[in-house]
Amino acid sequence: MPKQGDHRERRDSIARALWTIVEQQGWVRATMREVAREAGVSLGQVQHYFSSRAEMLTFAIEFAAEQTSRRVAQGVAALDQPPHPREVLRVILTEFLPLQPGARATSQMNAAYVLEALHDPALRQQVADGLREGRAGVERLIRAAINDGQISPNRDPAIETDQILALTGFAPLLELGVLAPQAALAAIDQHLDRLFSDT
Amino acid sequence: MPKQGDHRERRDSIARALWTIVEQQGWVRATMREVAREAGVSLGQVQHYFSSRAEMLTFAIEFAAEQTSRRVAQGVAALDQPPHPREVLRVILTEFLPLQPGARATSQMNAAYVLEALHDPALRQQVADGLREGRAGVERLIRAAINDGQISPNRDPAIETDQILALTGFAPLLELGVLAPQAALAAIDQHLDRLFSDT
Repeated sequence: MPKQGDHRERRDSIARALWTIVEQQGWVRATMREVAREAGVSLGQVQHYFSSRAEMLTFAIEFAAEQTSRRVAQGVAALDQPPHPREVLRVILTEFLPLQPGARATSQMNAAYVLEALHDPALRQQVADGLREGRAGVERLIRAAINDGQISPNRDPAIETDQILALTGFAPLLELGVLAPQAALAAIDQHLDRLFSDT
Repeated sequence: MPKQGDHRERRDSIARALWTIVEQQGWVRATMREVAREAGVSLGQVQHYFSSRAEMLTFAIEFAAEQTSRRVAQGVAALDQPPHPREVLRVILTEFLPLQPGARATSQMNAAYVLEALHDPALRQQVADGLREGRAGVERLIRAAINDGQISPNRDPAIETDQILALTGFAPLLELGVLAPQAALAAIDQHLDRLFSDT
C-alpha cells in the first residue's frame, strides 16, 4: 500500500500514463484499464484515485494545464526583465501550440477535452471557465501594453485578444503536419510585429 | 429492400443521422448501432452501406465537406459579381465556423475527425490532403488579389494564408460559448480589413 504522502505523486504518475496513451494511441483508447496497464498498477489502484473515467480525465487536463502554466512561467522568466509584452504573448502561444514535445500531448488532450465537454454540462463549465480565464489574462496584458504605449490606442483590446486566441487554431494543422512549425512561428511573429509596431 | 437508385439517398440519410448524434450526444456515442436507431433502419442496413465505423465516419465527413463547399458556393454566388476576394474569404470563414445551424455539426465532426486521424494513418492522409487542398485554394485567392492590387505586394502570400487559416481556431471557442458569434465576426472583419486596406 502506498503511504499517504505518495498520494499526489501516484495521481501524477497516473496522469502521465494517461498522457502517454493519448499521445500514442489517441483519446478514445484512454480507458481506466489501459491507463492502469501503462502506469504499471492495478485497475483497482486507478479506481482508488479516480472514481470514474471522467474524473481521471478532469484531473489529467488540470495537470496538463498546470504543466503548461509552468512552461509559460519558465519561458517568461528566461526573457530579459522586465519582459516585453510581445515576448510574453509569444511564449504563451508557443507553449500552447504543439511545437515542442511536452506540448503535443497537452494540445491533443485539450482538443479531446473540448469535444467531450460539449456534451457534459459540468465539464463544459470547467473548460469554458478555464478558457475565459486564459482569455482574460491575455486581454489584461494587451490593455496594459496599450496603456504603456507599446500597442496603438487605436487598437480595440477585445478584438486584438480574440485575434491572439485565434492563433491557437494552428494546433490541428501542426499536429497533422499540414503546417510546419517554422511557418506557424512566422505567422505568429508577423502578427505580433504588426500589433506592436502600429503605434 | 431499397432500389439501387436509393443507394445514395440512403447513405446520405445515414450520414445525417450520424450528424444528429454527433451534434446532440457527441462523437464517441456515434456507433453504427446508434446511427441505425437514429436513422430508423436496422444495424444490418447500416452495415450494408458501411463495412466499419471508420468507413461510416469517412463518408460522413466527406458528405459534411460537400455540404460546406455547397454553402460556400451559394454564399459566393449571392455576392456582387464579380465577387471581391475579401468577401469570398469572409464567406469561407463564416461557413467553416459554427456560426449557423448547419455548420455546427460539421465543425464538431471536423474536430473529432482530426483527433481520430492522428492515430489512423489512412484517415490522417485523407484529412491532411483535404486541409492542404483548402489551404492551397486560399493561397491562390490571396496571390490573385496581390496580383490584382487588392492586397499589398509587401504581404507574404504564404504567411497571410496561414493567418486566415488560424481564424478557424475560433471554432472551439464558439462551440463552448466563450466567444460570441459577433465577436468572432468582428475579429474576422478587422483582420480582412487590414489585409485589404494596407495597399
